[in-house]
Amino acid sequence: MRSLGSIRSYAKHLRLDGVKDTIAIASGKGGVGKSTTAVALARKCQLKVGLLDVDVYGPSIPTMMNINTKPEVTHDKKMIPIENYGVKCMSIGFLVDKDAPIVWRGPMVSNALEKMTRGVDWGKLDILVMDMPPGTGDVQIAMSQNLQLSGALIVSTPQDVALMDARRGVKMFNKVDVPILGIVENMSCFKCPHCGQPSYIFGKGGAHGTASEMGLEFLGEIPLEVDVREACDQGHPIVLAAPDSVVSKAYGEIAEKLAQKLKEQQFHPEIIL
Amino acid sequence: MRSLGSIRSYAKHLRLDGVKDTIAIASGKGGVGKSTTAVALARKCQLKVGLLDVDVYGPSIPTMMNINTKPEVTHDKKMIPIENYGVKCMSIGFLVDKDAPIVWRGPMVSNALEKMTRGVDWGKLDILVMDMPPGTGDVQIAMSQNLQLSGALIVSTPQDVALMDARRGVKMFNKVDVPILGIVENMSCFKCPHCGQPSYIFGKGGAHGTASEMGLEFLGEIPLEVDVREACDQGHPIVLAAPDSVVSKAYGEIAEKLAQKLKEQQFHPEIIL
Repeated sequence: MRSLGSIRSYAKHLRLDGVKDTIAIASGKGGVGKSTTAVALARKCQLKVGLLDVDVYGPSIPTMMNINTKPEVTHDKKMIPIENYGVKCMSIGFLVDKDAPIVWRGPMVSNALEKMTRGVDWGKLDILVMDMPPGTGDVQIAMSQNLQLSGALIVSTPQDVALMDARRGVKMFNKVDVPILGIVENMSCFKCPHCGQPSYIFGKGGAHGTASEMGLEFLGEIPLEVDVREACDQGHPIVLAAPDSVVSKAYGEIAEKLAQKLKEQQFHPEIIL
Repeated sequence: MRSLGSIRSYAKHLRLDGVKDTIAIASGKGGVGKSTTAVALARKCQLKVGLLDVDVYGPSIPTMMNINTKPEVTHDKKMIPIENYGVKCMSIGFLVDKDAPIVWRGPMVSNALEKMTRGVDWGKLDILVMDMPPGTGDVQIAMSQNLQLSGALIVSTPQDVALMDARRGVKMFNKVDVPILGIVENMSCFKCPHCGQPSYIFGKGGAHGTASEMGLEFLGEIPLEVDVREACDQGHPIVLAAPDSVVSKAYGEIAEKLAQKLKEQQFHPEIIL
């Protein structure tokens, strides 16, 4: 896989115009709070944030961010991202029918991704968050080769099976020289709304253990709450719907740590081995 | 997408030798009980069942089915599936290191899938269950074009975002002329182990609604239980670990309905429009 790494080094200058940091948020499964993290970065850290949904096979940003319009186009044919909750969003879901399956082979995916990154008028952004699809296939390869990623955040539930996917994700980003910013555990603990007792439905402490085992920073855990799912389904991010909830605070802290990590990186000279 | 459909018609004779029915189990997310359904088919319906993990980017069958060996090879160079819990299993995970990411582009995936279907000595099977990865990309296209699928089962959690993926899955299979056997809802309801009260963490009745709306049969719902996750992580399917639990009964009923549906299909002449 050496070739991927070297193409990646070549891609070091492949920044998006006006975008300070581009980060990937990856997870083995969907619905783990990637878009909410983007909103938290915008609100909590007062940053200019973009959110790019590169999950071409299962775009969820239109629902999550409550966007039902199509992007307009500038005079030089760039798509204008659609802003909601202070975040500039772009998703393949804006361009196709809501339930339409996108039955595309790899090369078509790569073309679409090019249009959705360089073909978008992002303006000035502090952070562009890429919502990655599950897996380590064409989308992941294309994005790592064609963009200079400042790093990747891995989100996982505490299940063994999910953690295995998380470890695979970390190793994939290692191969293409993308630094791992940290690991977040989602669906950590469910507190029964009736009796208040906690249940570790998907296991306990798994992502924390995986982070230490791999020498990575553990950025925090997000509990499982009915409110979060309801807010997501209604297209209203929990960090805005209930800013003082335990979940929102967890997202806020993770966003702050992320922003801090990116800031620190900028002060360090890059070491190429 | 007409071309996919016509290639698919051509593929009508592309049965796997000795395999009566090949079905795909698909879901937007992983960890929704696909392998458990295969075990339930084997146990509850007394069928000869094979389980093929085509989730090349996130194989979970080795963990779920507690298999740590590599497949042996016959004299004519076919891989011998590894049997556990009465199910003959094959997974890309048997052939690579546990946490190794498989960073492959589409054509490499298609080649691997060919080896994992026709390159396997399945013997006589009533049903070969294919555990599909999330999405509607290369794997899904390759499998629908190169194999005669008797049908597809869609599994979804009740979340809106997941149901959207389920609808995309249904439409993809429609495009390639694969009949939908039904929809199953997983993680339906969580009963607090402390107070016994139910919480509909991921929503209520969503998959049932989607099934009626799309004119599809709803085959059942599987509650969310801590035991199930624990059994999965330990490589011991819940239908064997706790055969009398509510979850196991739900799986048993779904397996029976599935087997019945496949039986009915065999008595109907195929109508090609």
